[in-house]
Formats: sequence, C-alpha cells, structure tokens
Amino acid sequence: MAVQQITSYRFKASPYGHRVELALAEAKAPHKVYDVDLFNKPEWFVSQINPAGKVPVITYGGPDVAPENPSPLSEKIAESGVILEFIADLYPDSGLLPKDPVARAKVRFFIETVSSKFLPPIFAWSKGQETVENVLKGVDTIQDLLSESGEFAVGNTYTIADAAIIPFIAGLKISYENDIGNYTPGEGHRLGSELQKTQYAKFMRYSQSMLERQSTKDTFDVEHVTDFYRMIYPRK
Amino acid sequence: MAVQQITSYRFKASPYGHRVELALAEAKAPHKVYDVDLFNKPEWFVSQINPAGKVPVITYGGPDVAPENPSPLSEKIAESGVILEFIADLYPDSGLLPKDPVARAKVRFFIETVSSKFLPPIFAWSKGQETVENVLKGVDTIQDLLSESGEFAVGNTYTIADAAIIPFIAGLKISYENDIGNYTPGEGHRLGSELQKTQYAKFMRYSQSMLERQSTKDTFDVEHVTDFYRMIYPRK
Repeated sequence: MAVQQITSYRFKASPYGHRVELALAEAKAPHKVYDVDLFNKPEWFVSQINPAGKVPVITYGGPDVAPENPSPLSEKIAESGVILEFIADLYPDSGLLPKDPVARAKVRFFIETVSSKFLPPIFAWSKGQETVENVLKGVDTIQDLLSESGEFAVGNTYTIADAAIIPFIAGLKISYENDIGNYTPGEGHRLGSELQKTQYAKFMRYSQSMLERQSTKDTFDVEHVTDFYRMIYPRK
Repeated sequence: MAVQQITSYRFKASPYGHRVELALAEAKAPHKVYDVDLFNKPEWFVSQINPAGKVPVITYGGPDVAPENPSPLSEKIAESGVILEFIADLYPDSGLLPKDPVARAKVRFFIETVSSKFLPPIFAWSKGQETVENVLKGVDTIQDLLSESGEFAVGNTYTIADAAIIPFIAGLKISYENDIGNYTPGEGHRLGSELQKTQYAKFMRYSQSMLERQSTKDTFDVEHVTDFYRMIYPRK
C-alpha cells in the first residue's frame, strides 16, 4: 500500500496536536505541518477542513496542494486518538501498534487510562480545582501500567501509547517546574518535589527518557509552550 | 491465528456489556458469558478478574475453565471500546473493522462521536438534568454521520461502530416509550413524538433496522432492561 500525502493541522502549543506529530515522527512519515491560529481561525479551515473548527486534523490523499489551499479530494481525519490509530494502520511495520491482538489491547487500554484517570486531575489541578494528591494518584495509576522495564508505556517498543501520554507529561513538567497554573502559588513546585520521591521513580525515569528521545526533541518547543502557559495562566 | 477461549463478564442490563455481546455475535465467536451482579460483586471477580471491579471484561486464552474459577493464565481485557477493537483484531475477516485505513478511521470517529456527543446529553436527560432538545441535537449529529444508505453506521457492512451505538439506542427507546427516567413525567413520550418527525427519519430507520437485526435480538433482553430501568428510576 503506497502511503499518500499527509498534512497535519495543529495548534502548536496543544498536546493533542503534539500526539500526532510524535506518531508521524516515529513512523518517519513524510508530511506537511500547518499551524492553525485558534484565536483567529482561517475561514477556509472551518469550511474546508473541519466544520467543528477543532485541531488536530490531518488530510490524507488527494493532490499535492499547499495546506492553506486544501483539496476537496483529500480525506479529513479528526480526533487525536483516531489519528494515532490511523497512522499506526498506515505504517503497520512501524511498531506503533504491535501485531498481536492482546498487545494491541494493552496499548489501547493504556491510552484509555490516560484519558480517564491521568488527564482529568491534571486539567482540574491546572485550573486550581484539584489537589496535588489527586494528580499523584493519576501518576500512580500510570506507573502501575508502565512496562516492566519502564522504558516504554507498553511492551518493548515505542507505541501510540507513548505518543498519547508524552505531550501531557511534557506540559505537566513545564507547569510544576515554573509554577505556572491557576493553583495557589507554590503548588506547582510542591508537585515537583513530591514527584522526586522514590515511590514515583519509575514514572520519572520513563518520563525523562521519553523527553530526551529524538522524536520528542524534534516535535516539542519547550519555550513556545512555556510562553503559552504563561499567557493562559497569568500570575496576578 | 487460532482464536483461544473467550469469556465475557458483563452486567446484563448494561449497554457497555451489550456492545461486547453484539461484536461477539456478529463475529460468530464462540464464548462463555457470566452475569456479574454489580450489587453483590463476587470476591473472586475483583481479586482475579478486574481489581477496578468494573464490567465488561473478557478473559482470553488460558485453560478452559468455569467463569467462576478464572485462570491466572488468561489475559484480562477491560473497557468496552478496547474490547470491541480486540474482537475486530481477533476476527479480521468479520468486517467488524474494514481493512482500509481511512474506512477504519471513520468507524473510530463514529465511536468517538457516540461517546462525546450522543451519550452525554442522553445520560444527563435520563437524570432530569438535560433538555429533550439537546438529546435531539445528539441524534442529529449521529444522523449526519450515518452512511449514505443509512443501513449501517459506516460504509456497507456491520462494524464495531454499530455495536457501539445500538445498545444505547435500544436503551433510549425503552426510556422514551415507557416514560422511564428521572425527568418530568411526559418528557419521555415527548422525545418519542419528536423522533417521529421527518427530520429524524434516517436515524429512526437505521435504529429500527438494527433493533430487528438477528444479533440484537439474540443479545438484548428488552424486558430485563425495562425492569432494571424501572428499578433505578422509580416513579414517586
């Protein structure tokens, strides 16, 4: 199967778009990237790419056009979870999804757990509506799922489970290291100290190794995301 | 690949467990079923099947044992969305997921939309916390996604997208036909009348044809679910 053109529309500071970039990088998939300004959405994006106005979206196939001039002949695929599976389907030998059904189920269960248990307390905490302790419970849940070696989320290769969680770990680190959030000042640093405890060592080792991985370095602009966080969570 | 033993643990009145039964029925997958009493959970279920205590779960592989006596050698797979993908992976020729990556993405986008747009207003409405109008908006969203012929959710075959939505359509019908819910009495019947309008004809034709399908008949006990709804939503 010949893979056709891929154009990735994202909001540069968004972890969901980062998921897509990570999977494309790991699959070594040639593609174009277009940064959508969510605060000033181009009319053509809503009318021709995603009527819901949301990113990430990828276009697949159709003629080779400029991202600003999308073709009605390309497929438009939205929702980061759906796009991750799509990239894994396009590149079945990338290892993004293992071939064994049980191993695939473990990858999907990990991603489901990220959405249902890891992210909700982090989002609420960032808004000042959740405790550090409940963020740590989410960390614990993920830590229990990590593969035995702790090198990857599931099994012995990089999968879409890694791509699904890393953007949020990267964002969380920016928040706690710089104490940026709508929480009481100091709560970010307190989370950072808590995470240094031995009981979270496996999670932190996994995080560190993933943040140093080439695909993360190539797709994550720490300064840009830090500036964005400072903008949405200004200190009074 | 030889498929190994499958045991499906479900709560009989739960739409999530029904999803699993539908997919197994459509794949013609031999399997055992065990009805877990969620109001009186067996200790062995929590300790040996799912520490989270939740259904549905399937066990896969390991020796051929009685459901009440699960083997540590079987894989335990939880979360209905994960299980649907797993069954599609086990039976790649069942059509439960098409082979084409774009078509697969459409199936997954449909399921994601069921979770994010169709179910939340229905759940809230059943509790008396949402309007009939917003339930109808969810219906509209799904109707727009239905395949052109309206015979299946996506494309021209039964997929896990159908298995993902049918249990909730079946449950909604019981609610509005019998006016069972925590809403103001009469609101169920009002939803039922609204759905008779021409603008929802495609959704209703799809629903009717799916409810009459053999796999639905074989896996859905209308009386049992109606009694359960009457129990959890008693009229004062």
